[in-house]
Amino acid sequence: MERGSVVRITDVAALAGVAPSTVSKALNGNGSLRESTRARVREAAERLGFVPDASARSLSARRSFTVGLLSTDSAGRFSLPVVLGAENALVGGELSALLATARHDPVREQHHVRALVARRVDGIIVTGRTTEPREPIRVPMPVVYAFAPSTDPDDASVVPDDAAGMRLLVDHLVERGRRRIAYVGGRAEQAASLVRHDTLVAELGSRGLQLAGPPLYGDWSEQWGRRAVDLVLGPAGGSAGGRSEGGAGGAGDVDAIVFASDQLARGGCDRLRERGLRVPDEVAVTGYDDWEVMSLASRPPLTTVDMQLERLGQRAAELLIAAIEGEPARGVERLAPRLVVRASTLGDG
Amino acid sequence: MERGSVVRITDVAALAGVAPSTVSKALNGNGSLRESTRARVREAAERLGFVPDASARSLSARRSFTVGLLSTDSAGRFSLPVVLGAENALVGGELSALLATARHDPVREQHHVRALVARRVDGIIVTGRTTEPREPIRVPMPVVYAFAPSTDPDDASVVPDDAAGMRLLVDHLVERGRRRIAYVGGRAEQAASLVRHDTLVAELGSRGLQLAGPPLYGDWSEQWGRRAVDLVLGPAGGSAGGRSEGGAGGAGDVDAIVFASDQLARGGCDRLRERGLRVPDEVAVTGYDDWEVMSLASRPPLTTVDMQLERLGQRAAELLIAAIEGEPARGVERLAPRLVVRASTLGDG
Repeated sequence: MERGSVVRITDVAALAGVAPSTVSKALNGNGSLRESTRARVREAAERLGFVPDASARSLSARRSFTVGLLSTDSAGRFSLPVVLGAENALVGGELSALLATARHDPVREQHHVRALVARRVDGIIVTGRTTEPREPIRVPMPVVYAFAPSTDPDDASVVPDDAAGMRLLVDHLVERGRRRIAYVGGRAEQAASLVRHDTLVAELGSRGLQLAGPPLYGDWSEQWGRRAVDLVLGPAGGSAGGRSEGGAGGAGDVDAIVFASDQLARGGCDRLRERGLRVPDEVAVTGYDDWEVMSLASRPPLTTVDMQLERLGQRAAELLIAAIEGEPARGVERLAPRLVVRASTLGDG
Repeated sequence: MERGSVVRITDVAALAGVAPSTVSKALNGNGSLRESTRARVREAAERLGFVPDASARSLSARRSFTVGLLSTDSAGRFSLPVVLGAENALVGGELSALLATARHDPVREQHHVRALVARRVDGIIVTGRTTEPREPIRVPMPVVYAFAPSTDPDDASVVPDDAAGMRLLVDHLVERGRRRIAYVGGRAEQAASLVRHDTLVAELGSRGLQLAGPPLYGDWSEQWGRRAVDLVLGPAGGSAGGRSEGGAGGAGDVDAIVFASDQLARGGCDRLRERGLRVPDEVAVTGYDDWEVMSLASRPPLTTVDMQLERLGQRAAELLIAAIEGEPARGVERLAPRLVVRASTLGDG
């Protein structure tokens, strides 16, 4: 937590080279000061992120029963369910949720953080667009990070347990008799791609199996999912995009492909079908996220992992409420995901 | 506006059959009352949606600089950009946004409305999941309805101009030489399906053209988009799902299909390709919404209409801010959409 690092009026005074009482006058707009002095103080306060509201520094004394939901996401794909889950739990606790969306703009985020502090929120939940760790915010009230954890191990964060999700998938695939499993990730540098890969390799290893071929990384698009199928299986027989004649021959040494997202897996299913391969009879396919727009529309519908993002938002709200009531948590809590089994692994038999 | 219909303490007293002072005692939990009386008053207050906060009825005197964003949506597909746009404009106006999501649950919505009133928000923006008109909320502060208009013509609503969007599409298709245009809608009873159909027919009629075949309605899924292609063109030649041999023959009397959403159009493109028809050379395709997950992932990418939902949210916030400052608007404002041209209509030549 950054509770010790609140900016004080004396810090602003030091930076502006004036007395603390001058800072107060300058920011409250009273007293007779030169405009240049006033401007210098305002600039110093702005630079330090100082919140000119005395009551914001004595929060423990009283509560606003309002919590800030700070989201860095614009698309909302992942953060929206987290925000909804948090809002749901907050309402249950008779708290209101102030929404603040920063859209990956640090200046906007700073502005929002200051506005939330000035509003004297009891605490803040910070959500992100990916599970990449992020810099903590500096505020004088409890904060819980949801989905994107804080880089500070002393902060409280709730994240989806990706390793557990991948274990569920491997258990399921191996139970269904699959042994030659390939992996297609999204962006190579992202935790969502890497944790899923590492867990897959470890789980296969513990069963005396190994990954079929090298892991493949690209981006998070359906297009990459389609292209990756050709890289996993080798060029399609005959003309590009045409149906293969020989049935199972096209799948080579692979009987399952684990994709790191539903979007990838959906593109993969499309490409496998175009190559004349039957999913899952010849190649089983798994996704990740249970984003229903993808997982249900896929042909066939996808076996995938539901990260339980609403539950994750609820849990973040519970941790925040506990912290507000004097019971702060520390460290990263990993929330168990849920396996969702559909036709892409079930087979006809 | 429902400003005249605020529930007063006397209304609660009348329904409960007690004196107004008894209502006050019962709801504030003081005075000596029988528990049955207290329960009867609480029930009456609950039924009428009475807000037991005197200051909520004298809002004009002071402002909280907080606005409620009430969303009935859980998926967030349409309401999320509206909420983001509104939040953006509110922040610019130095207002904070209290988020309240009701998820199509009237009880939850009632609870949220009461909580927002108790919080003394300066105004409320109500967003919906569809453009179907909705019942107004009854609160003692300004309200603007965004995306889903209020059924009360005296309320202020901002909605996307679907007729204008369809005119843009027809202009574009006719310019590209298309004359035999079919229509595939979503759910038959919804404004989004019907307004788009009616405008399409009227626009074609004004050019001496008519719709190719009857309009088709189903749901909003890709699956329906695929199936609708077979209904428009007749059963595929040869085995189901096989490639047609004769090129253009398969398209029959249709040279364009207007789908009422990107999801439908994406399914349509998939099915046209499976039937061996080239999009747009043989059949041009248009979508609606510019939901990029669909419109960009479609093969080929979709020509579509962007309803400008963020702009719509911003506009709702502007109208609300004006109303809070004493300049309320009345009636439905239609926001002009934007044509987005991509490969599904452009052709190769």
